Amino acid sequence: MNYINFDKTLAYAKLRELAANYRGKEVFNKLDGARVRSCNVPAGAGLTYNYAAKNLDDTVLGVLRVLAHEQDLIGKYKLLLDGEVMNTGENRKVLHHLLRGQLGKDVIYEGKNLGAFYKNELERFAVFAADVHAGKVTGGTGKRFTTAVQIGIGGSDLGPRALYLALESWARKEGKAKLAARFISNVDPDDAAAVLAPLDLESTLFILVSKSGTTQETLANELFVKDKLKKAGLNPAKHLLAVTSETSPLAHNSDYLDSFYIDDFIGGRYSATSGVGGVILSLAFGADVFKEILNGAREADKAALEPDLLKNAALLDALIGVWERNFLNYPYTAVLPYSQALSRFPAHLQQLDMESNGKSVNRAGVKVDYATGPVVFGEPGTNGQHSFYQLLHQGTDIAPLQFIGFAESQLGEDVEVDGSVSQTKLKANLAAQIIAFAKGKASENPNKNFEGGRPSSLIYGRRLTPAALGALLAHFENKVMFQGFVWNLNSFDQEGVQLGKILTKQVLTAKGASGDSALDEYSKLLGV
Amino acid sequence: MNYINFDKTLAYAKLRELAANYRGKEVFNKLDGARVRSCNVPAGAGLTYNYAAKNLDDTVLGVLRVLAHEQDLIGKYKLLLDGEVMNTGENRKVLHHLLRGQLGKDVIYEGKNLGAFYKNELERFAVFAADVHAGKVTGGTGKRFTTAVQIGIGGSDLGPRALYLALESWARKEGKAKLAARFISNVDPDDAAAVLAPLDLESTLFILVSKSGTTQETLANELFVKDKLKKAGLNPAKHLLAVTSETSPLAHNSDYLDSFYIDDFIGGRYSATSGVGGVILSLAFGADVFKEILNGAREADKAALEPDLLKNAALLDALIGVWERNFLNYPYTAVLPYSQALSRFPAHLQQLDMESNGKSVNRAGVKVDYATGPVVFGEPGTNGQHSFYQLLHQGTDIAPLQFIGFAESQLGEDVEVDGSVSQTKLKANLAAQIIAFAKGKASENPNKNFEGGRPSSLIYGRRLTPAALGALLAHFENKVMFQGFVWNLNSFDQEGVQLGKILTKQVLTAKGASGDSALDEYSKLLGV
Repeated sequence: MNYINFDKTLAYAKLRELAANYRGKEVFNKLDGARVRSCNVPAGAGLTYNYAAKNLDDTVLGVLRVLAHEQDLIGKYKLLLDGEVMNTGENRKVLHHLLRGQLGKDVIYEGKNLGAFYKNELERFAVFAADVHAGKVTGGTGKRFTTAVQIGIGGSDLGPRALYLALESWARKEGKAKLAARFISNVDPDDAAAVLAPLDLESTLFILVSKSGTTQETLANELFVKDKLKKAGLNPAKHLLAVTSETSPLAHNSDYLDSFYIDDFIGGRYSATSGVGGVILSLAFGADVFKEILNGAREADKAALEPDLLKNAALLDALIGVWERNFLNYPYTAVLPYSQALSRFPAHLQQLDMESNGKSVNRAGVKVDYATGPVVFGEPGTNGQHSFYQLLHQGTDIAPLQFIGFAESQLGEDVEVDGSVSQTKLKANLAAQIIAFAKGKASENPNKNFEGGRPSSLIYGRRLTPAALGALLAHFENKVMFQGFVWNLNSFDQEGVQLGKILTKQVLTAKGASGDSALDEYSKLLGV
Repeated sequence: MNYINFDKTLAYAKLRELAANYRGKEVFNKLDGARVRSCNVPAGAGLTYNYAAKNLDDTVLGVLRVLAHEQDLIGKYKLLLDGEVMNTGENRKVLHHLLRGQLGKDVIYEGKNLGAFYKNELERFAVFAADVHAGKVTGGTGKRFTTAVQIGIGGSDLGPRALYLALESWARKEGKAKLAARFISNVDPDDAAAVLAPLDLESTLFILVSKSGTTQETLANELFVKDKLKKAGLNPAKHLLAVTSETSPLAHNSDYLDSFYIDDFIGGRYSATSGVGGVILSLAFGADVFKEILNGAREADKAALEPDLLKNAALLDALIGVWERNFLNYPYTAVLPYSQALSRFPAHLQQLDMESNGKSVNRAGVKVDYATGPVVFGEPGTNGQHSFYQLLHQGTDIAPLQFIGFAESQLGEDVEVDGSVSQTKLKANLAAQIIAFAKGKASENPNKNFEGGRPSSLIYGRRLTPAALGALLAHFENKVMFQGFVWNLNSFDQEGVQLGKILTKQVLTAKGASGDSALDEYSKLLGV
């Protein structure tokens, strides 16, 4: 396989040339019903990606197709599926797709079939969850578990939390709600204290999630929780699970009721479909629901293998993003789900994207000369419309937008006001925003003038079900992966978080004499 | 008063010249304990703003001082306090400071002293809250209210919600927790349904918040709630309050238990210190706590009157932001509170900043030729460290950072692990991040190389109390106001949200024949 920097491709030069004379407004002027209909691409599990309101014409699209071939994006994805070491910096395979089912060759590592290993862990925690639901596994006093609390940070928190919130209402509606789920992440002791305050510890099961078993925040919160359990006269070993790697200090440890395993080939931000997300989601909704998420993700993973750019939603989304980032020079992207259930999905995508592609060196560790991953932010609509959309509509800079919407609500409870129900209003707002951003509206009063020309895409489906959610998650994982391939990055390490860790340790051990007087002074200001 | 565009000032030209030859790295090289000590500026209520790790030298600072004089930033602030029509587009005064106490002349409008009016409303809802706490005001069945649910969107949601979450734990610790608070904002019917599901309606008091009384989302959610109340056999008029303007259809209306008033001079995103935030916060924590918030805000408002730039935290923060936005060309700013209680404070600041200064025309409605408000995003630390900080440390672009931290936790519950308690770890992480971003660390391995040169500021205090929270809120309101003055904007209107409203109405009434085939097709895709 050939790995070259983006700016060494022929497509790069051609796109630069096109961008120099690009008249984006014409695309938006041509945005009509026929264009909307012609820009639908299936994204798996009933989801569709629509790029009609994106700022690119057929010429650009043609060069993006060349780019996909030049960088052999599908070929690289296949290599990844087959177990190639794609996390070059850490010398690791990248196997989160395998959690959802096998799409490539058998992946064998040190004599172990990893697909079988992941499947086995999935079945183990499915059984465990069923035992909890059946009351076979209980807390130390024999009381049934009613709440599961995940203790984890970063990828052990954001993805699982976003998925739980996305399905909490759905599960209640569908009679699938088993345990309530809560999350403790921050080393700020107020986080754990606030989460624990309203809970009945006797009926609470804690899930400690750390691949390495050495995450500072998570271990501190574990002790916080154990302390509370002991003070309540409970045996922590009857109330704690671990999700970790087999080589971590948490593994095979009688301090935990049980332990479930992942390995180094499942990166934190890609771990929502492993036990990291699976244990708590199976406890909350049942393992069948979690498996539906996996099925949806697998559908999206399969869809991402499609070689035809115009039929591959993740690939197209990725390449349009590159066009916007490197040639239209937009430094950020907003994620705008019109679904309250997706309230924390943007925070998950923020990690997924910014931690994967917020890099300045290529996969071989050499500095690149082009922009890489954008800043990602977002909040649900219609809330955002009454907040930061002002800047998106009339600010001096343009932000590409990623809308997400569903035909039906999750709970189906609704009221009619002024001739329409709320769900209809929600969708009408979404459709209206796409057009408002794209086409704008001229006014003689410049304060009421909307220039338009603000590009957006739309991912839509019938209803936010577990399968749709899995596909949505995987769509973005694959989009980010393809962009990493274009930019010739290693999207699977995160060296950028290390320096902070080292300096923190220095502060904690040096106690005011770290050797850096500024660091000591900041510590002093904060009363460290 | 002289209102001129930013690029017509002498300071603008000078700053452009300075930026062309600016060697930012030297500032970071000089970052030592003495510089940290010399860069502390009081921000009110015990908060301090520190700009030692910002990327500017004394020469730049000198020109920023000139800019403050040229644009007469303090003079304009005083005019605003005195009741001048600063919201030019809507021909309105801008009076949120007056909610916290009078710092300028008496503001009389149509014969009414508005300071007295705001104070009277404050006392009215203080009495009302006390009556609820005393059980004098109860629900329709005589049951005491235990939960207050705010129904509002945008400024009627984000600020009040951020403030409630910021003090929820503090109040429990201090014995000030009275009612629980919940929030319904989105027109997505799943939002209201999910919030209502676990509640005992008999003991729930709803607060309908809409200045105009015509907000689509809020009225839809009101009906949703009324419907639920009726189905539960309860009289909605015994369970609903309104916070609105006296000219709205919600005013003086027997459908509500009581109504509290604001007016057109309190903009939505600036309304957290009016009844919009005050009613629910007084119900949740008691009016004395809300008044402490006002006192803190007032202290920050007073601090913002200081003419000496180096002693005025909000002014300095504003001008440094302008230097970063217009001359160092950073398109975004991250807000990073090291306090879990401030989990939704970044979302409030996102609205405050982006809706106020995300404009392309000046206060007279003429297009400007320079960048205005940045994109604002953020999440609490240390969570963010395990998420998007990778890009902040090693991405190809630089994002200025706004850290916030406190010496003490709110709840004071903590555990020691490896020789330090969690609160100490939290603060050590914060100090370490500032240095890591500023100074970086050279490595022969480019993947482990940190270039540094990434600027940040720090706002710190002893503990996140109501007064500190009020000062923090007002600090940012005043920062955004000063930046608007520099850019010669009207920071107090939001015309950018109007077009979406119009098109939404078109979708809802035209039912597939809006006259725009693209709009109709998007509506169809979504099943409108």
